[in-house]
Amino acid sequence: MKASRMLIATLKEVPNDAVIPSHILLIRSGMIKKMSAGIYNYLPLGLRTLRKVENIIREEMDKAGAEEILCSCLQPKELWEASGRWYKYGSELMRIKDRHDRDFCLAPTAEEVFTDLTSVLVKSYKQLPVIPYQIQTKYRDEFRPRFGLMRSREFIMKDAYSFDVDTEGLDKSYDLMYKTYEKIFDRFHLNYKIVLADSGAIGGNGSHQFMALSSTGESDIIYCDCGYAADAEKAESKAEVAEKEEMLSLEEVHTPNFKTIEEVANFLNIDVKKTVKAVAYRDLEHNKTVICFVRGDRDVNEIKVINELGVSEELIRMATPEEIAEIGTVDGFMGPIGLKEENVLIDIEVTNMYNFVVGANKKDYHIKNANFNRDFKGKILDLRLAKESDLCPICGKPMKLERGIEVGQVFKLQTKYSEAMGCTYLDKNGQTVPMVMGCYGIGVTRTMSAIIEQYHDEFGIKWPLNVAPYHVVIVPAKYTDPAQQELADKIHDMLNDTKVEVILDDRDASLGFKMKDFELIGIPYIMIVGRRAAEGIVELKDRMTNEKVEMPYEEAIKKIVEAVENI
Amino acid sequence: MKASRMLIATLKEVPNDAVIPSHILLIRSGMIKKMSAGIYNYLPLGLRTLRKVENIIREEMDKAGAEEILCSCLQPKELWEASGRWYKYGSELMRIKDRHDRDFCLAPTAEEVFTDLTSVLVKSYKQLPVIPYQIQTKYRDEFRPRFGLMRSREFIMKDAYSFDVDTEGLDKSYDLMYKTYEKIFDRFHLNYKIVLADSGAIGGNGSHQFMALSSTGESDIIYCDCGYAADAEKAESKAEVAEKEEMLSLEEVHTPNFKTIEEVANFLNIDVKKTVKAVAYRDLEHNKTVICFVRGDRDVNEIKVINELGVSEELIRMATPEEIAEIGTVDGFMGPIGLKEENVLIDIEVTNMYNFVVGANKKDYHIKNANFNRDFKGKILDLRLAKESDLCPICGKPMKLERGIEVGQVFKLQTKYSEAMGCTYLDKNGQTVPMVMGCYGIGVTRTMSAIIEQYHDEFGIKWPLNVAPYHVVIVPAKYTDPAQQELADKIHDMLNDTKVEVILDDRDASLGFKMKDFELIGIPYIMIVGRRAAEGIVELKDRMTNEKVEMPYEEAIKKIVEAVENI
Repeated sequence: MKASRMLIATLKEVPNDAVIPSHILLIRSGMIKKMSAGIYNYLPLGLRTLRKVENIIREEMDKAGAEEILCSCLQPKELWEASGRWYKYGSELMRIKDRHDRDFCLAPTAEEVFTDLTSVLVKSYKQLPVIPYQIQTKYRDEFRPRFGLMRSREFIMKDAYSFDVDTEGLDKSYDLMYKTYEKIFDRFHLNYKIVLADSGAIGGNGSHQFMALSSTGESDIIYCDCGYAADAEKAESKAEVAEKEEMLSLEEVHTPNFKTIEEVANFLNIDVKKTVKAVAYRDLEHNKTVICFVRGDRDVNEIKVINELGVSEELIRMATPEEIAEIGTVDGFMGPIGLKEENVLIDIEVTNMYNFVVGANKKDYHIKNANFNRDFKGKILDLRLAKESDLCPICGKPMKLERGIEVGQVFKLQTKYSEAMGCTYLDKNGQTVPMVMGCYGIGVTRTMSAIIEQYHDEFGIKWPLNVAPYHVVIVPAKYTDPAQQELADKIHDMLNDTKVEVILDDRDASLGFKMKDFELIGIPYIMIVGRRAAEGIVELKDRMTNEKVEMPYEEAIKKIVEAVENI
Repeated sequence: MKASRMLIATLKEVPNDAVIPSHILLIRSGMIKKMSAGIYNYLPLGLRTLRKVENIIREEMDKAGAEEILCSCLQPKELWEASGRWYKYGSELMRIKDRHDRDFCLAPTAEEVFTDLTSVLVKSYKQLPVIPYQIQTKYRDEFRPRFGLMRSREFIMKDAYSFDVDTEGLDKSYDLMYKTYEKIFDRFHLNYKIVLADSGAIGGNGSHQFMALSSTGESDIIYCDCGYAADAEKAESKAEVAEKEEMLSLEEVHTPNFKTIEEVANFLNIDVKKTVKAVAYRDLEHNKTVICFVRGDRDVNEIKVINELGVSEELIRMATPEEIAEIGTVDGFMGPIGLKEENVLIDIEVTNMYNFVVGANKKDYHIKNANFNRDFKGKILDLRLAKESDLCPICGKPMKLERGIEVGQVFKLQTKYSEAMGCTYLDKNGQTVPMVMGCYGIGVTRTMSAIIEQYHDEFGIKWPLNVAPYHVVIVPAKYTDPAQQELADKIHDMLNDTKVEVILDDRDASLGFKMKDFELIGIPYIMIVGRRAAEGIVELKDRMTNEKVEMPYEEAIKKIVEAVENI
């Protein structure tokens, strides 16, 4: 491919909405171009890398015995009503009416259509298990799309769904996909962690996320050297146990004008660890207000509250002062003493505390020397958000925190969709049984971004060889020089007869200009044909290490051909 | 691939909305599955064929030096306003609002986005020509989607756009794409005709359609053995010349209660070829009524009227009786005599007639012995619809008619979009000049249907080898028979080591059942492993000819491997 005939469109300027390296570099290298907020067009170089990323995923999915299909992203309302998600999904679901005023959506995920298809295609236990998958465009109308392909409104996902006869079968399919994902992310040369993820109402260890480590990631990963790793939403920590004390008598204290528990602790001259903080939620599904109590220096993990209440994310919010008043307390002065047990959720750590301060359920008052069991009761559970240096729930050592980009997730759906949508099979005894499902997603375009986050420097992208848009670019210092042109053309022809994907930069521009372009684009090998062209000597630059070595052109070709053959 | 692990979903029943073979067979073979009217999901076998069709197109486009990109089908209103098509497009354009109430459409074509992209990416004549293309899903909200993938609401198209410095460059790009399309449709083994197509206001020989011949096609092709071929909308014919007569005097006749020109001719006992028919249109863009006059046995070609008026298709309709009255005539009795010339379009054939009957522009009256020039004038042009057995405009012999499926179109856009959207380049003298554009479409999913229309029989599809989902299926008569299983497995393993894509039908079902499935699906080679398995003898069925030959399995493998290598 000659550079003069290619749509190369590198930019010097950093686009003003771009803050993270992958966004900046995808735009500056001319791989993608923004069409609208969170919607991008893929230019030739970007599309080549995208297809390579897709193909690596496809190869590993096919090897695992999954079968590729392609479902329309324009899906009728009826399907989404059957699962109940048409109403549950908020404004992130893009809705559209056809000319006959029938409702459709641009699907953000494909549980419904895969469940519906499988319910028709599979009738007997003999046909199970099956793992259909697709690589398809998805839509999520983010309020504030950002970070380029990382959080866009249109993105490409690989989504797979497994259908099994029972949970044992699901465990096998889940394990197969888990291992397949390891192979896939290994092939992308990503530095990633597999973490326990929240699996909602289903609970258990029913979900894992594949997190590419990066300071620009939007997810917090809590992990321990012992091997424990979890998404911050899911992470547990060992509850601390306070030193035992004699229980003292309750004592009301006047605490006017203090907004936070820290201010109260300060006023009373005690450690904030000797206080208990309250957070009130309104469960809109069950029309119920609950107050969560955690140690004063902790935060409530809302996901854990949601899972405990068995309510969907859209149907919970902070309670209003009025709703708080209705259950007999006062916003800002909430405490567990005297409340009904049904309105109270208590973090287990609170049961390990002595003589602590709580709200008095009365304006401008707190109570000192509260003690669990003696003074109040309630549902005890793990409610607190795990943080860096909290103790590992497995080994008890302080945990660490890293930021990650969620590039994949595996999830045991169990029978949630198959029951709702009548996706059943006939078992050996002729009984109708719902299929047991798992779902498995990989953010294809997000993975492309994650690779850049891990592989770049101040000059541009450093694509790993197997996802680079081209493997090598031949850059003559001056293409109009006869010796350089002859050698460059010769190398181009020779490489074109191999599997190596090659660009010849025949443009009328300076060596520096051309080098900058391809360093920005991140072509793994840059072969400079310069002043020693007549001797057949070229300079080969390895973009990953930025090392430049002079060598005979035959040797350079051999090196590249071998590298490409060993991809 | 083992059939027991595949999502094979053949149907015995013909779906009740399917009338043409490709629709029936795509559904019955389990290649696609309807999700909503005109929206289909691609099951594993269908997706494999779709990808092969796409890849053949991609290979030939790449060979021609075109560069693949991928543009979102979700496009902002602003782009479509810039070209003026947001308002011109009617209800076939699917429109959607995002959560911020901004307008988007699901694009039916991509002139806007390609023009916009190129205007940014290309600045200088040095970068031209370029031919970016994409293979992407498109949307057209058909009032009545039908014929499966042939006229669906969601379909896949390859669309390419060429950008040149001048019309000479455009001619070259057009020619290159024309030749590339011939290569592509040859590789699909389609029997097709390339026909002159209407190119609207641009005129000239600025468009060709590639028509796969089929009785189920929706397009009429008028052609002559001399080589002339045109879409019926575009086709010309040689005007007939009536035998010369002495001009007689005008004579008013009372013709009450006759609705059609045939009734009038009958009443007056004359050949309908001695009458002139009138059709009135209302041009909503220029607020003007025009009456078109053609010989009584002819029809007006509305496209020719539209091109003459230079109005877009959505802005023309039949005139109402009131609009007709406004220009001084009467619906049902319209004639050219006495009308203003600006309201009259006359087919050239009318100027070759003598003493004919026309409407009297007065209720219940016609006029006899009208003659052009003596009695009336007006704009003369080719207005009539060409029909089978009309005379060829080139050689004068009677033309023939066939029906075709439009699978591709090439079109000279000239500067329509580049001027509207400011897609310019700097020429050698530093002058800003609009790029000269062409556009080139192939209906990818429609081509898949067209192949089936030409390659099927009463048993099912007969895929050409290069687009078949798999090349061969091994069908043991009884897989549980040890000799059959051993040989079938051996052949499966041997073929898996080659490029041949193979299915082993290991299902517990009768030979007849399994054969029916794969004849319906249209796998090119069916290798039956039956009672002579122990001797190493198989039966090889060629699905294209339906011939079955017994031979040693090694010979069968050799035959298939060779065929696949020669694809």
